[in-house]
Amino acid sequence: MSKTKYTVGIDFGTESGRAVLVEVATGREVASTVYPYQHGVIDEVLPLPGKLIHLDPDWALQDPLDYIRTIQITIPAVLAETRIDPADIVGLGIDFTACTMLPVKADGTPLATLPTFRDNPHAWVKLWKHHAAQPEADRINATARKLNQSWLARYGNKISSEWFFSKTLQILDEAPEIYQAADRLLEAADWVIWQLTGEEKRNSCTAGYKAIWSKREGFPPKEYFAALDPRLENVIDEKMSHVIYPIGERAGGLTEQAAGWTGLRPGTAVAVANVDAHVAVPAVTVTEPGRMVMIMGTSICHMVLSGEEHLVPGICGYVEDGIIPGMFGYEAGQSCVGDHFAWFVENCVPAAYERQARERGLDLHQLLEEKAASLKPGESGLLALDWWNGNRSVLVDVDLTGILIGATLATKPEEIYRALIEATAFGTRVIIEAFQDHGVPVNDLVACGGLPEKNRLLMQIYADVTGREMKVTASKQTSALGAAMFGAVAAGRAAGGYDTIFEATRDMAHLKEETFKPNLASKEVYDQLYAEYLRLHDYFGRGGNDVMKTLKRIKAEVIHS
Amino acid sequence: MSKTKYTVGIDFGTESGRAVLVEVATGREVASTVYPYQHGVIDEVLPLPGKLIHLDPDWALQDPLDYIRTIQITIPAVLAETRIDPADIVGLGIDFTACTMLPVKADGTPLATLPTFRDNPHAWVKLWKHHAAQPEADRINATARKLNQSWLARYGNKISSEWFFSKTLQILDEAPEIYQAADRLLEAADWVIWQLTGEEKRNSCTAGYKAIWSKREGFPPKEYFAALDPRLENVIDEKMSHVIYPIGERAGGLTEQAAGWTGLRPGTAVAVANVDAHVAVPAVTVTEPGRMVMIMGTSICHMVLSGEEHLVPGICGYVEDGIIPGMFGYEAGQSCVGDHFAWFVENCVPAAYERQARERGLDLHQLLEEKAASLKPGESGLLALDWWNGNRSVLVDVDLTGILIGATLATKPEEIYRALIEATAFGTRVIIEAFQDHGVPVNDLVACGGLPEKNRLLMQIYADVTGREMKVTASKQTSALGAAMFGAVAAGRAAGGYDTIFEATRDMAHLKEETFKPNLASKEVYDQLYAEYLRLHDYFGRGGNDVMKTLKRIKAEVIHS
Repeated sequence: MSKTKYTVGIDFGTESGRAVLVEVATGREVASTVYPYQHGVIDEVLPLPGKLIHLDPDWALQDPLDYIRTIQITIPAVLAETRIDPADIVGLGIDFTACTMLPVKADGTPLATLPTFRDNPHAWVKLWKHHAAQPEADRINATARKLNQSWLARYGNKISSEWFFSKTLQILDEAPEIYQAADRLLEAADWVIWQLTGEEKRNSCTAGYKAIWSKREGFPPKEYFAALDPRLENVIDEKMSHVIYPIGERAGGLTEQAAGWTGLRPGTAVAVANVDAHVAVPAVTVTEPGRMVMIMGTSICHMVLSGEEHLVPGICGYVEDGIIPGMFGYEAGQSCVGDHFAWFVENCVPAAYERQARERGLDLHQLLEEKAASLKPGESGLLALDWWNGNRSVLVDVDLTGILIGATLATKPEEIYRALIEATAFGTRVIIEAFQDHGVPVNDLVACGGLPEKNRLLMQIYADVTGREMKVTASKQTSALGAAMFGAVAAGRAAGGYDTIFEATRDMAHLKEETFKPNLASKEVYDQLYAEYLRLHDYFGRGGNDVMKTLKRIKAEVIHS
Repeated sequence: MSKTKYTVGIDFGTESGRAVLVEVATGREVASTVYPYQHGVIDEVLPLPGKLIHLDPDWALQDPLDYIRTIQITIPAVLAETRIDPADIVGLGIDFTACTMLPVKADGTPLATLPTFRDNPHAWVKLWKHHAAQPEADRINATARKLNQSWLARYGNKISSEWFFSKTLQILDEAPEIYQAADRLLEAADWVIWQLTGEEKRNSCTAGYKAIWSKREGFPPKEYFAALDPRLENVIDEKMSHVIYPIGERAGGLTEQAAGWTGLRPGTAVAVANVDAHVAVPAVTVTEPGRMVMIMGTSICHMVLSGEEHLVPGICGYVEDGIIPGMFGYEAGQSCVGDHFAWFVENCVPAAYERQARERGLDLHQLLEEKAASLKPGESGLLALDWWNGNRSVLVDVDLTGILIGATLATKPEEIYRALIEATAFGTRVIIEAFQDHGVPVNDLVACGGLPEKNRLLMQIYADVTGREMKVTASKQTSALGAAMFGAVAAGRAAGGYDTIFEATRDMAHLKEETFKPNLASKEVYDQLYAEYLRLHDYFGRGGNDVMKTLKRIKAEVIHS
């Protein structure tokens, strides 16, 4: 009888890193530990003793050594807690925020760790939510349109300021000496794999979704980069790589040094890096077309697989092998979901409700959910456009803002709260219909993230509005589980893991038994409300009335006057 | 040297009656007393001992004896307080809510006081805000359109369910025995004058604004009433009167009985009754064209005078001699102003603000005003349509609802609060422009009511949005002062009063020295916002998108399903 085998996943998040140790045969999560990064998100001053180097607003950096510390602290902790023999741990996978990128020397040394460069903010890791590269993103988009770059359509015709070349171009613009000194520019995800295995193996997920790479066409051509900036012409050859490894491959074995950090055995299989959102897809059982995975938190990330390539207007992008090998992975997004409810609770709920919640031992979200749940669909008489933080998919317009319509003197806070939930559900339905209408079917929904645990009303509303069954992951740390699953695949069946992510998913990923099924009577009412939502969506979102932009312009003018 | 002369005004409000004793020569308010009606607004059960007669929702009644008690209690109280010789009180005027009407016998006895009828709710006074006669109002309007009644245009093409014939028709529909038993149907205002003077003298203000009467055309023709209901054909001849007395006339002298009630001398001059809103116009110094009087409270009533007759679409109506003799008095309205802010404070202001207000000894309105005042025009990035309670002028549509547009995750409660104030100011500007565009100039604004005292920010915003100087009455009880002024006019100069309301106004009405002048820089920003407001106003208010009505329809359907 073979001994129980295990695999480890590390989820590198925004504020902390989390390791989870998982049973290969079942996906059972045996232990997990969180390491809050020593320097967290660096958005005010660089963490340099005795120096005050301030960052501009919109900057967000990290310390690459925080990632190493995560490895050094969390894996030994789960080993110590479980007393599992490292010989029974067959693989290790990681997932990361993205695009989170850094400049390093040829041997992998981050410039941020070198005395010559550490005072320069551009030497540090640019975190995904570093938003200071908008001028560069604008140039990237304008130049792409000018040169008729076909790849632009893969990304809903817009490259984000968060993405790889926006950040790269900002380094070149503002700190050419850093650009010059960087032998390699790469995702922190790939840099960590390099530190674990000694091998620079770039993954197809970040390359595809964040760095304009595709399996068939590669990166944009040299002429495009030269048009952006002559110094950028050979950026791929000089500082990146044309060799991209598909998700699901083995990156290498653990080095002696990394084995020393972790307590794992040298040579333990390490998977090619992954992105936190995308790695969740198999972790919530999805490896086939027709099922939309929704990571529901402050925002929603929507992912669907398909065997076919389709241009779907207004989505974030699609990447072959980007999520599951052999499939096109499509990604869309809503920029304001949990954030929406948090804003409402903080700014719009009266003191009487706070007292009521306190007396009943509820938090305000719970009280509002309870009150809102007692309303029927359509009963509030309200309709909202969920654009408090702009619209990602399918309008791709950060300058859109929120609307609430239908308020009367009898309107209650829970009615507004419910209308906001419904608006985000209508937003999801717009995305689903965009996929459906362009050849990417969506038959059911699988949710993970913070919201599904917290708000049952929200889940039912999404089921009713979309007319689709809504399933929920059984894992509380979906991304880390997904990373661990890829660790098991990197090991292979012969070493006690799996040969494919499909097999790993079948055995290791699980959904809760309870699902949210659409109520047909509710769906009928929501169909009527959705027709009104769509009409307002198109009127305000597609140029019928640009009042939102006008208000933003006036606001900017009066603030600066 | 003649002794100082005085005049008394009684303002019959919704919850109470207030008497004020005023110096004729100066308008100085010497004393005042309030009597809260014993039965207040009767909207649940009739106040009958040992009986439970329930009222339907939307009903609002009053007890006519509460008006008599007001007279019996308040005038003796101000006399006792001031020890003024009743011989020095030259006149008495009253103002009333309207349309507030009742059925009485030929001798003036209210049916509600007769044992035969007192159990029937239709025997009681129907208060202005009795809203149960909408089906009758609909019939009145439909029939008027069918019969091409020219008078409909005088009232913005819509007769309200609050008005005289809607209420009359409801009595006929639901209680024909009461209609039958009523020898007279009349405004409570005119009934009170009858009780004071022994003479039934109907006033031109209520007749004109509430009962479809005009000086030139009289009431609608018999054929019209017959088309509504054959039993109504002779309603004017049988239960009303063709003789209507213009505002500013003497109704008669105080009877012995009324003198006994009040302590005033028999024969004291009593003015023809007036309406609380309209009587305020001279009380805030306005007796000439070009100046808009705004009574600003839960709603706004706008009044302008003109020497000329003009059809202004969407206003409430205009009446010759309705406010000032010899002038056309135009009335428009906004249905949701103070109510709007009250709704916001009750439903949308977070507990943190309540704590902050408490710590600083402010109420929430004051705190919000202070925070909102620190914002520049346009800085919130928000725009609202002030239709939380429908739109009176100029769209005349109760089924419109509120919109807030431009919300982001950074939107603060005080920004919404300010946007709501601005929206009501834009609503006033729409009304002003409707008047201007149709031949009724509006050069400056004179405000009275509860809001101007309470909210300086609001006053400045109205000045900035309308580009007009905003003046404020010096009186805290404008309507009662106006009633007292008409009392002095009823007395005439020979008796120590005035011969005309113009003279009375010159001496007795006063404004505060401080006024709110438009800030031109703010006006420029508001002009831009107003253009956006107007576009949304017309899109949602004139059929471009009927989503508000659709939401109301869906709401009604799901509530009743």
